[in-house]
Amino acid sequence: MSVTAAEGFAAAGVHAGIRRAGPDLAVVRSTRPAVGAAVWTTNRVLAAPVVVSKRHLMTAEPQAVVINAGVANAATGGAGIADAERTAAEAGHALGLFPEQVVVLSTGVIGVQLPMDRVLAGVREASTALSTAGGEAAAGAILTTDRWPKQAAVDGNGFVVGGMAKGAGMIHPRLATMLAVVTTDYPLEAGEPLEFLREAVDTSFNRISVDGECSTNDAVVLLANGAREVERTAAADEGFAAALGDVCAALAREIVSDGEGSTVLLEIAVSGAASDVEAEAVARRIATSPLVKTAAFGRDPNWGRVLAAAGSAPWNGGFAHLDADRLSVSFDGVSVFLRGQPTGAKPALGGTAVAIDLDLGLGAGSASYLASDLTYDYVKLNAEYTT
Amino acid sequence: MSVTAAEGFAAAGVHAGIRRAGPDLAVVRSTRPAVGAAVWTTNRVLAAPVVVSKRHLMTAEPQAVVINAGVANAATGGAGIADAERTAAEAGHALGLFPEQVVVLSTGVIGVQLPMDRVLAGVREASTALSTAGGEAAAGAILTTDRWPKQAAVDGNGFVVGGMAKGAGMIHPRLATMLAVVTTDYPLEAGEPLEFLREAVDTSFNRISVDGECSTNDAVVLLANGAREVERTAAADEGFAAALGDVCAALAREIVSDGEGSTVLLEIAVSGAASDVEAEAVARRIATSPLVKTAAFGRDPNWGRVLAAAGSAPWNGGFAHLDADRLSVSFDGVSVFLRGQPTGAKPALGGTAVAIDLDLGLGAGSASYLASDLTYDYVKLNAEYTT
Repeated sequence: MSVTAAEGFAAAGVHAGIRRAGPDLAVVRSTRPAVGAAVWTTNRVLAAPVVVSKRHLMTAEPQAVVINAGVANAATGGAGIADAERTAAEAGHALGLFPEQVVVLSTGVIGVQLPMDRVLAGVREASTALSTAGGEAAAGAILTTDRWPKQAAVDGNGFVVGGMAKGAGMIHPRLATMLAVVTTDYPLEAGEPLEFLREAVDTSFNRISVDGECSTNDAVVLLANGAREVERTAAADEGFAAALGDVCAALAREIVSDGEGSTVLLEIAVSGAASDVEAEAVARRIATSPLVKTAAFGRDPNWGRVLAAAGSAPWNGGFAHLDADRLSVSFDGVSVFLRGQPTGAKPALGGTAVAIDLDLGLGAGSASYLASDLTYDYVKLNAEYTT
Repeated sequence: MSVTAAEGFAAAGVHAGIRRAGPDLAVVRSTRPAVGAAVWTTNRVLAAPVVVSKRHLMTAEPQAVVINAGVANAATGGAGIADAERTAAEAGHALGLFPEQVVVLSTGVIGVQLPMDRVLAGVREASTALSTAGGEAAAGAILTTDRWPKQAAVDGNGFVVGGMAKGAGMIHPRLATMLAVVTTDYPLEAGEPLEFLREAVDTSFNRISVDGECSTNDAVVLLANGAREVERTAAADEGFAAALGDVCAALAREIVSDGEGSTVLLEIAVSGAASDVEAEAVARRIATSPLVKTAAFGRDPNWGRVLAAAGSAPWNGGFAHLDADRLSVSFDGVSVFLRGQPTGAKPALGGTAVAIDLDLGLGAGSASYLASDLTYDYVKLNAEYTT
């Protein structure tokens, strides 16, 4: 159930002292030649490790990932870039790899330089401690405001996909958001991982919202080492894509469930849209609506706010197509608004998840989204921890 | 200082009983032939009064406005449309106007039918009570979760512009959750009010954000009756446009200051952008960022969150142009981030307003935005205000 679940991967998590207490540096590596890819934040403000790792991925296949928590190494100028490069070089030296074969990721406070002595000592210590049982320790060493470690693994037909993530919100005093490392022993060729990863990320990590923020550091990395000999057929590839999608979806769900201050998981499903992209726009707008999210915190099946949010979903320079008279909404399967008319039903929302289903009644487009609610604790976490 | 400040306007506010306590129905009319226009919400889900009033404005010049608070008459189907039409007809009958000369506006709960007996009795009562001193009463009768009435007036060169508004939640550009009626005795011809109004709204009501929501009912209405004989020159028109802009800006500022749960006003100014529209996109993204808004509530000059928000401002299918190395940020005039480097300064943010200035260092584009902070009380108001 961890990032070392697949054959031929080792990991470690250590306390490097970047922050006061707890493990804060993780290394994951493939013990045999691997191929890989990453999907990055689209924020225009990129953290130094993102800049450096993107460059590395253009010149070599990634064999190892180094992650530190506590300092994001973002908005740190040229010194920050040099620090990220030194981290990769030190890891390469310790692991017998070229620096370009190392991906570096950071999460933590923005605008603060990494304490490099500690980082480099931590990299050496973790590199020595690597083990195939080290997945748990690695997952614990990448957390920030997370309440629990996030891990997932799927046993495929003759192969394994495993992974770990951190999330929680883009938060704390200027903390950056979401990181995930996924590994597999399924045999992929160079160049193939990106396509599989993009498809999996599109319907998992890209369909979750804690607070609608997009950080400077977000990254999802995939390493595939082919340690298991699986015959590559279309069916096998589909099986791998499904397993990869399941692991990403499980990690994404964990991230939202552990969203800062969250008390309930919103499972938003939009159907009947004019197109899939419009369904996604509507689902995203609902998932990021403060009014829908505060209503969810109050366990209020407030379909009026769902309607108002759906009606203002940005799409193509305007709003997504929608006709209130054709629209239907249900909460936890109970119809509250049916083809333009309130039904009068008011379902009790008691659980730790609420399903909000919208049928736009226009076409065949559909999309789903996961979101957390907006609570006192979200405000508390983000207002009271000052920089 | 009210909607009856200009010559030839009368108003009244009464308790019709649409909600339990307090005044909840207002009528504003011109006592002589007027021309007018309105700018409406762009939400795809339109409240019935919006549908009906848009139709009325296409066939006649508006002479009166009827506003009820308590029930939004949104998502109410064909019956809601009929109710809005009956309201206009009753007002027309009481005021000696065609129904099409009456604009009807509603604000309140979505998905509930208007109690028409009370509404019609209230329309009759208010029509009888109209007076040139009735502006205050009207401003008080249109509020919902607002903490205070919002009024403004400007004495121009030989003319007056006055107005009232309600806001408080669901406030966002593209006119959200907000109603405003502005009157003037400046002489305009039929067809002219819309152009003046659009220009004024673009830089006032469309540059504010409480929670990024866009409502089903938002409207800004302008009535101009030419009660004052002002010679129409280019200079006079500019003076009128400036006065109208000032009244709209004052009302918009009041709305944000009274944003649900808000404790501080964020005055966001973006300069040095590649273009004005990109500056607006960046300013809007900062104004709607939960992280920036919770930091403001905590009086934390958290430039890291400002950077991260600015770097993810949606524009033209991607993000607005931005280069972190050229970017500078100041809080209340104190530079905290200068051309890509933290300055180390940490200004104390003590007042009821915080100025956040961003210089992107790219071009000559600029824009400003007003926003409220995100607080416990916002969550409380919206989690506990059940349907």
